[in-house]
Amino acid sequence: MSSDVEASVFNWPGGARCAASFSFDVDGESGALAALPEARDSFSVMSHQRYGPTVGVRRILEILDRAGVRSTFFVPGLTAGLHPGTVRDIAAAGHEIANHGYAHIRPAGLTVEEQIIELDRGSDAIERATGERPVGYRAPMWDLSWELPKLLADRGFLYDSSLMDDDLPYRLDVGDDGSETLIEVPIQWALDDWEQYCYLPEITELGPIQTSEHAVALWRSELEGIRRYGGCWVLTNHPFLSGRPGRASALEDFIGDVRGMPDVWIASVGEIAAHAMTQQQPPRQLPTLTPPENDLG
Amino acid sequence: MSSDVEASVFNWPGGARCAASFSFDVDGESGALAALPEARDSFSVMSHQRYGPTVGVRRILEILDRAGVRSTFFVPGLTAGLHPGTVRDIAAAGHEIANHGYAHIRPAGLTVEEQIIELDRGSDAIERATGERPVGYRAPMWDLSWELPKLLADRGFLYDSSLMDDDLPYRLDVGDDGSETLIEVPIQWALDDWEQYCYLPEITELGPIQTSEHAVALWRSELEGIRRYGGCWVLTNHPFLSGRPGRASALEDFIGDVRGMPDVWIASVGEIAAHAMTQQQPPRQLPTLTPPENDLG
Amino acid sequence: MSSDVEASVFNWPGGARCAASFSFDVDGESGALAALPEARDSFSVMSHQRYGPTVGVRRILEILDRAGVRSTFFVPGLTAGLHPGTVRDIAAAGHEIANHGYAHIRPAGLTVEEQIIELDRGSDAIERATGERPVGYRAPMWDLSWELPKLLADRGFLYDSSLMDDDLPYRLDVGDDGSETLIEVPIQWALDDWEQYCYLPEITELGPIQTSEHAVALWRSELEGIRRYGGCWVLTNHPFLSGRPGRASALEDFIGDVRGMPDVWIASVGEIAAHAMTQQQPPRQLPTLTPPENDLG
Amino acid sequence: MSSDVEASVFNWPGGARCAASFSFDVDGESGALAALPEARDSFSVMSHQRYGPTVGVRRILEILDRAGVRSTFFVPGLTAGLHPGTVRDIAAAGHEIANHGYAHIRPAGLTVEEQIIELDRGSDAIERATGERPVGYRAPMWDLSWELPKLLADRGFLYDSSLMDDDLPYRLDVGDDGSETLIEVPIQWALDDWEQYCYLPEITELGPIQTSEHAVALWRSELEGIRRYGGCWVLTNHPFLSGRPGRASALEDFIGDVRGMPDVWIASVGEIAAHAMTQQQPPRQLPTLTPPENDLG
Repeated sequence: MSSDVEASVFNWPGGARCAASFSFDVDGESGALAALPEARDSFSVMSHQRYGPTVGVRRILEILDRAGVRSTFFVPGLTAGLHPGTVRDIAAAGHEIANHGYAHIRPAGLTVEEQIIELDRGSDAIERATGERPVGYRAPMWDLSWELPKLLADRGFLYDSSLMDDDLPYRLDVGDDGSETLIEVPIQWALDDWEQYCYLPEITELGPIQTSEHAVALWRSELEGIRRYGGCWVLTNHPFLSGRPGRASALEDFIGDVRGMPDVWIASVGEIAAHAMTQQQPPRQLPTLTPPENDLG
Repeated sequence: MSSDVEASVFNWPGGARCAASFSFDVDGESGALAALPEARDSFSVMSHQRYGPTVGVRRILEILDRAGVRSTFFVPGLTAGLHPGTVRDIAAAGHEIANHGYAHIRPAGLTVEEQIIELDRGSDAIERATGERPVGYRAPMWDLSWELPKLLADRGFLYDSSLMDDDLPYRLDVGDDGSETLIEVPIQWALDDWEQYCYLPEITELGPIQTSEHAVALWRSELEGIRRYGGCWVLTNHPFLSGRPGRASALEDFIGDVRGMPDVWIASVGEIAAHAMTQQQPPRQLPTLTPPENDLG
Repeated sequence: MSSDVEASVFNWPGGARCAASFSFDVDGESGALAALPEARDSFSVMSHQRYGPTVGVRRILEILDRAGVRSTFFVPGLTAGLHPGTVRDIAAAGHEIANHGYAHIRPAGLTVEEQIIELDRGSDAIERATGERPVGYRAPMWDLSWELPKLLADRGFLYDSSLMDDDLPYRLDVGDDGSETLIEVPIQWALDDWEQYCYLPEITELGPIQTSEHAVALWRSELEGIRRYGGCWVLTNHPFLSGRPGRASALEDFIGDVRGMPDVWIASVGEIAAHAMTQQQPPRQLPTLTPPENDLG
Repeated sequence: MSSDVEASVFNWPGGARCAASFSFDVDGESGALAALPEARDSFSVMSHQRYGPTVGVRRILEILDRAGVRSTFFVPGLTAGLHPGTVRDIAAAGHEIANHGYAHIRPAGLTVEEQIIELDRGSDAIERATGERPVGYRAPMWDLSWELPKLLADRGFLYDSSLMDDDLPYRLDVGDDGSETLIEVPIQWALDDWEQYCYLPEITELGPIQTSEHAVALWRSELEGIRRYGGCWVLTNHPFLSGRPGRASALEDFIGDVRGMPDVWIASVGEIAAHAMTQQQPPRQLPTLTPPENDLG
């Protein structure tokens, strides 16, 4: 690690050099149904997805408890409806429950009206299970629309965690004048177990399925890079994938390693967003796709 | 391996911490024909599949014999019809022959009538080759329908092995009142050589083909996780893939390693199912995909 | 390596336990054009393919010369027409030139008349370049039809090398009575550099491109398995892929390793086929896809 | 490394055995928009691409500055229009800015008129940002048309870097008589981070995402091969991928290693092209796809 690299100006609690969050997307049945409606007819595919809320979450809660780590679980409304006890267990263990849409439909491509329905139904289902409305959001399929930031801010959400254009959280101006903002806690595809572990014929023909050694090496390498250059490391695991014994075991050991890194602040995504609110960052405008000279061309 | 993790309450024979089964799906020609009917015109593709029942099974039987391991071979009826001597050799070596459909057509998507034909023709073909009807079933393409559990129980099957929603075998209530049940011995995609080794242009464009070192590392890692947390490890190999010398050699060495693990009970899938029958587990209802609040929404 | 495994009864020259052949498919431009005719419009794609006959072959010939290894180059007629000097250089270096069709069109799917045209035009183009007609054949895309064995025998070919249903060469009865036969020297997808190294957008979206360390580990592992159980190891490299410096370097080192194995007979595919002719194997009938009981229903 | 291999006759500055260039394609938003126009509706996808010009380039510039390495950045006109400050920063740091089309549309498949518009708009946008017209070109998607070499030479370009048919730069005769030529600096898919790191659902379903250890091993292995046999090693990284902390860290360390190789000349692509101009290579004709004997066939 070179000493001539400047740390980011973002100030983390306790003088940490970077933050790390172990987050979970509890897609369950909805993940497959949204991708391929015919998956409804397959007991096998549904059982593959059910493993997450019925078995995987329980194992992950035990791991987080042993490690003393607080996390965020992004739960589609349909998962909350089908497995309310699981969602209550997550909340009872002290973790954050956040909105992940209702039926895991990707927002980009929906009308604004459809987006609102999916968003609000997601919050309703979580509130029905836990008694509390979520203040965090992550777009299904990590596919945020341009309209959602304002819809989230209008509903009192503190943060979104679906964009990929920075290493650090930032404040997004969802209107025109900076008076209404939303914290963005960025993610990235390399910090996702889906891309490493998922194989479902006709649904995600990813593969070959990687070893947990490979996945953890990828995540660790990015964390080391963030320790070198500064930043915020947000890992996403899916309980139907990483709840499996071999992967859970590798994750448990890896969490132990990260806990031993003195320069890393481990927190839930909501805690990171709340901290980002204290950083007085100037709000950023939504980016444009039209360069000025296009008027000439 | 942490000592603070509670073992599963499932009791395995001899006080073993977990069970392990080396099972085989002998798809042969049917595996390619069901995926792409035009494969019938390709001598090369058919020869790729034929390798399983003609060469691969023979090598695997020798390996299992040297290791003293009893296994289960899931055999499509078409394989039994085209290669009856192979199926008889498997049975003569003391292994279990189980139903894997007739023409390797995935049940989810068929009508109930079509499912019945495929199921019964599969059992008929096995009985014609070996004189015995199978009591175990695994869905072609690991794609069980919702109707098959009851169809299997009605025909006296002891178990299915196509679902993915638990680490342990369980008892499934195929009716309404728990009076008719079927044992489920779960599998998972990470414990399948197909996903690691198969490449057939236009049929399965998986790949790149992994080394046997990679595949065995994946399977070993999951077994270690199951030894840590408890569970049942069911590996599936395809003789047309894992019967190849390099892979068979790696499998033979790996079986040797597993035999040396004192806390692992190695058994056929049928033996695991029969043991599960003794565990007095309350039967589980088939899961629903409709949450209660959908009446409101 | 266990000593309790019986070697194959096939007798290799000099008492070798197995045979190994380093063969090359010189697809060049035809490989991409047959897969996607529009590739004709892309200078980049054509240059990717041209690398084989213009640069890759030259490097490989030097490597084989330094190693003293004789090989077989399967050359589509179109490659021979576009690069006749390259083909003459291969022949002048003492290697076998064999037929790989004309335009790299997969035979399975063509009419018999079309297959004959592709086959004969391939031989014509090679004869035009080298003065000799080939006696060996490998189907483009490794996709042999059911008709080609007889077409090849009728034209005096000694062998085909496109099937995958054995570890050893065998004699195929191309007629009904064993009076007309063809030697088959089997191949397999795991012993192919295409599957490990090729990436061409819209043509073969394989990938991610593997390291030569990975590819050689795969090939070495299969060779070790064949040394353990007996057999015939036929590797296929494509000069447009494995002619690249890093891969060629790894191949050169690997060839050196194999030359140091005292139990391995290294030969061209034609030499292996000629040796197989001396083994008095009973000819095999072409396999059927219709089981006898299908008459019953 | 064997000592019996002859080095290439190409003379590199300072007696180096080979050249190495770390080049960058700054696709940004255009890379996804050209592949899937609907990506315009996805804030997430656009943010994934924006990371390159907004965050990745800045980190890479710091790395190149610390290493004292001069590089070439191929910038689509749309990136220059949306992020003119980024392009100015690259130029101000002393690196070469080269043409990468306007909207990252692959030229092969466009009419000549459309190709001219994309080419000239690309140069215009770069000139608008930096005040200088580029003299180097790389085709979007690495998919050069047959017409572009002459279009480039007509506009005074020194070089293209989109072809894959040699290990060394060469001079291309873009007319009939050798009076108008263009230097080609070849690239190859194995020296591209896109193929190793990119995953964007529905846009590039590559994957699984490789570790930077894997990618660097691939690139290093090819560099070692080129050091063995001679040649020119041109690596392409995309700031939206390799600008991420973990990958940037691996790249920084790797650049350090290459700087320590005494036989490697590190240069920008333009410097390599300018050097190739001094090598008095006879110009090469554009290759044909029609063999002479086709008149007979």
